[in-house]
Amino acid sequence: MTALERLQAELGTHVSVDPAELAATRTDKSGWVAPGMPLAIVHAASARHVQATLRIAAEDRIPVITRGAGTGLAGGACGTNGSIVLSLARMNRIVLIRPEDELAVVEPGVLNGDLNAALAAHGLWFAPDPASRAISTVGGNIATNAGGLLCAKYGVTREAVLALTVVLADGSLLKTGRATVKGVTGYDLTALLTGSEGTLGVIVEATVRARAVPAGETVTIGAVFPDVAQAAAASALVTAARLRPAVMELIDPVALALIVAYLGPELTDGVPTGGAFLLVQTDGPASQAEAQQAVAVLRGAGGEVRVSSDAASADRLLAVRRAAHPALAAHGEVLIEDVCVPRSRLADMFGRIAEISARTGIPIPTVAHAGDGNLHPNFVIPVDPHRGNAEPVVPEAVWAAAGELFRAALELGGTLTGEHGVGQLKRRWLAEELGDQSFALQRQIKAVFDPLGILNPGTMFEV
Amino acid sequence: MTALERLQAELGTHVSVDPAELAATRTDKSGWVAPGMPLAIVHAASARHVQATLRIAAEDRIPVITRGAGTGLAGGACGTNGSIVLSLARMNRIVLIRPEDELAVVEPGVLNGDLNAALAAHGLWFAPDPASRAISTVGGNIATNAGGLLCAKYGVTREAVLALTVVLADGSLLKTGRATVKGVTGYDLTALLTGSEGTLGVIVEATVRARAVPAGETVTIGAVFPDVAQAAAASALVTAARLRPAVMELIDPVALALIVAYLGPELTDGVPTGGAFLLVQTDGPASQAEAQQAVAVLRGAGGEVRVSSDAASADRLLAVRRAAHPALAAHGEVLIEDVCVPRSRLADMFGRIAEISARTGIPIPTVAHAGDGNLHPNFVIPVDPHRGNAEPVVPEAVWAAAGELFRAALELGGTLTGEHGVGQLKRRWLAEELGDQSFALQRQIKAVFDPLGILNPGTMFEV
Repeated sequence: MTALERLQAELGTHVSVDPAELAATRTDKSGWVAPGMPLAIVHAASARHVQATLRIAAEDRIPVITRGAGTGLAGGACGTNGSIVLSLARMNRIVLIRPEDELAVVEPGVLNGDLNAALAAHGLWFAPDPASRAISTVGGNIATNAGGLLCAKYGVTREAVLALTVVLADGSLLKTGRATVKGVTGYDLTALLTGSEGTLGVIVEATVRARAVPAGETVTIGAVFPDVAQAAAASALVTAARLRPAVMELIDPVALALIVAYLGPELTDGVPTGGAFLLVQTDGPASQAEAQQAVAVLRGAGGEVRVSSDAASADRLLAVRRAAHPALAAHGEVLIEDVCVPRSRLADMFGRIAEISARTGIPIPTVAHAGDGNLHPNFVIPVDPHRGNAEPVVPEAVWAAAGELFRAALELGGTLTGEHGVGQLKRRWLAEELGDQSFALQRQIKAVFDPLGILNPGTMFEV
Repeated sequence: MTALERLQAELGTHVSVDPAELAATRTDKSGWVAPGMPLAIVHAASARHVQATLRIAAEDRIPVITRGAGTGLAGGACGTNGSIVLSLARMNRIVLIRPEDELAVVEPGVLNGDLNAALAAHGLWFAPDPASRAISTVGGNIATNAGGLLCAKYGVTREAVLALTVVLADGSLLKTGRATVKGVTGYDLTALLTGSEGTLGVIVEATVRARAVPAGETVTIGAVFPDVAQAAAASALVTAARLRPAVMELIDPVALALIVAYLGPELTDGVPTGGAFLLVQTDGPASQAEAQQAVAVLRGAGGEVRVSSDAASADRLLAVRRAAHPALAAHGEVLIEDVCVPRSRLADMFGRIAEISARTGIPIPTVAHAGDGNLHPNFVIPVDPHRGNAEPVVPEAVWAAAGELFRAALELGGTLTGEHGVGQLKRRWLAEELGDQSFALQRQIKAVFDPLGILNPGTMFEV
C-alpha cells in the first residue's frame, strides 16, 4: 500500500485529497504560496491521529507540515509539494481550566480568543496577544513563540507555557514540563519546543499559564509627532521614565498617511496626516497615574497629545492602529517584515528604513511595537490585474530591500524576526544571524528530534 | 606534558593545586562532600582562560566542574575526584548597564546582590531573588534557573536572561539570544542553557533583563493559623481572590517552634509557638489595597493576622522567615529538599510530609514558597561529635524518606526540584520524573553539546 492508502485505511474520513482543500493549505497570511501540491491533508481529531500520521510518514520519509489556522506570516505552515499537511484545527477543545492553579490545558487548535473568552469567567486571561488572536490558534502561538502588543509588560508566549505533550517524528509521545510555577528537573524542553515552528515535534496538548486580569481601567493616549525620529525618541523616554505601558505602538508617516486616507478624518479623531503617531495604553491599578506621567513625557518630547475620556474616544484612537493592515492591503498584497532591535536603537532603525526606502524607491510603511523595539516594515506588492487568480510573487527587488533591513537590524544588535518566525521566507538569512557555531548546533538538535528530516522541511533550515 | 602541566603552562598562577583550596571545592551548601580530590582549580579571569581550560580538558577527557560561589544545594558544583574545578568567581565584572534598554551585561561571577546594588541607581532591579542572593552569583542563578521568593509575581531566572556567551566543551565560543525584548530566530538555546547546571557549556557572559523597581510601598502581613492545612488553604484563597502578592511564605508548626525557640519571643513579635505561620507581602502601586484584601481573606480563613505599620514591625515579621535556616542549623547539618506542586495541592503535600514524618519518625520541618507551591522540607542531621571534622553523612533512612517525598510530589502533579536543581543528589530520581522518552532525548541533547562527557559528569545524569 502507498502511504496515502495507509493513511486512508487508518484514518478514514480524517484524510482528504480534495484539490481545492489541498490548494488552500499552500499559503498563509504572508501571501507566499508553496510550489507544487501536497499529497493529502489529515484533519487530526486526537493525538492518536497525529501519532498514526507521523508513523506512516516516517515509514516513507514523507514531509509533514503541521498547520493550525494558517495565520502565519513566514510561510512556516504551508503545504509543500508531496507533503502531508497535518491540520490540528479540529483539535480545538479546552480540556480544563484550573482557576485555583491559574492554568488551562488545551488542545493546539483552540483559538487564542476562545481561550480568553473561557478564562474571563474566572477573572483570568492568556497574556500572549498577537494581532491575530481572534483567528490564530494557541498551538500556532506556541510553535512561533508569538509576540504581540503586550510583550514588554506581559512577556512573550514562552512565559505562558508550562507543559507540552508532543508527538515526535517517529510517532511516539513526549511530555515536557509540569503544572507548577517552578520546576528545574532536567533541560527545559518546553522552552526549546516553544518557537520551534513544527520542526521538532507536533504539539498535541499544552498546559498554559493564565494571569489575573489587571485591576483598574485602561487609559488610551494618542500622540502625534512631526516625524518618526521624534516619536521614537518619545517612546524611549517613556521607558526611561521607568513607566511600563501595556501597549506602545508607533506608526510612521508613510503608514499614517495611508491609514488616514483609508479611515477618513472623522474616524481618526482628527489625527493629522503628516507626522508619526504614537499610541500608548496604561493598565493596572495605577493606570491613571501612569497615564498622566506618560502624557507629561510625550508633551515634553514635542507630541500633540490626546487622552481617551471614555470607551468611544479610546476606540477611535485604537482604530488608527487597527486600520494599519487593511489600509495597506487596499493597495496590494502586503509583505509584513518583523525586525526587532534594542529599544534604544528604534530611532536608528527607522532611519535605516527611510534610507533604504529612499535609495531603492520602494515605499516601506512601518508600524512598530515601540515598547519592544519590534518593527513591522511593510512592502505593498501591487496585484497585477492581468495575472488574475495566479499567486502573487514578491519581486526580487523587494527581497533585496528586505535583506538590507535584516542586516541593518543585525548591525543594531537586533534580529531578523521578533515574533513571526523564520518559516520558509527568512531561512536564507538564518545562519547570518545565528553565526556558524549556533547554526551547526541547532541543526544537530534538529537531527536529534527528527533524524529523517520529515518535520516541516524547508522551514527554518534549507532541506 | 600532563594536563596539569599544560594548564599551568598556559594559565600560570590562575591554576592552584593547594590541597586546602581543592578540598574546599568538594562541597556546597547542601553539605554533601564529593569523594576523592580534584586535580586542580582554575581561577578563570577571562573567557580566554575558560576556553583554554576546556581545550586542555577535552584533550585528556578530564571532567570539568564549573563553580561559582559554591552556594548550590544539590551538589551540582562540587570538585569530584580527578576533575578540574573551573571557578568563575573572579569573573565578577558588571560589563555594562543600559538603563534605556533595561538590561545589564555581566560576567558570571558577579553576585546577585552586587548587580542589584548597581541597578538600583537607575531605578532598576534584577528580579531573580534566591534566598542566597547576597552570596550567590548570577552565573549560578542562571545555571540552576534559580527561583526564590518572588517567582509567582516576577518569574524565574529564565525570564530574566536575554542572551548568553558560552564556552562549549571543545573550547569554542557560542553566542545565544540577543539584547532585544523579542526574538524568535532559531531555537531558544538561551532557555535550554538556563538551568542546565554546567552540563552543556560554561557561561562566560550573560545579558540579563532589568525591571523597573515597582512604585509604592511594600506591606508585610503575618498570619498565624492553628495548623498547616488551614494556612495552606488560606494561601490558596489569596491566589483564588486573584491577588498576586510579591511574597507568600508558609512555615509549618515543626519549623515555627524551632524558629521561635531560636529567636525568642520578643524578636518574633509575639508569634505563638503552636501553629503555622503565613507571611504575605504586597508591593506595587496598589500594595495597600491588595494588603487590605489579603488581610480580609486571611482573617476569613481563620488566621490571627498582624500587619506591619512601619519598617521595624515589617522587619520583625520577616525575621521569622529569615531565621528558618539558622534555627534548624543550630541543631545539625540541614538537608534542604525542594519539591514543587501545583498550588492547589499545597495542603495535600503538607499532609504527605506529615504522614511520612510520622511513619518514619524523622522530623521534617518545612517552609514553603506558598505562592509557587514550592516546599522546602528540611532534614536536620545531628552532627556526631565523635566524627570531629569528618564529612557529615546523610543516613540512608533520610534519603529513603526524601525519596518518598519526591514520589508524593510527582503523584500530586509536581516535581522533585522546584529551584535547586538535580545536581549529584537527585539524579537517581531524574528518570522517574522525566519518563523514558524525555530522559533519552535529554541524554542525546547532552551528547550534542558534550560528546566526550567532560562537562560536570555525575550532575543530572549518572556517569
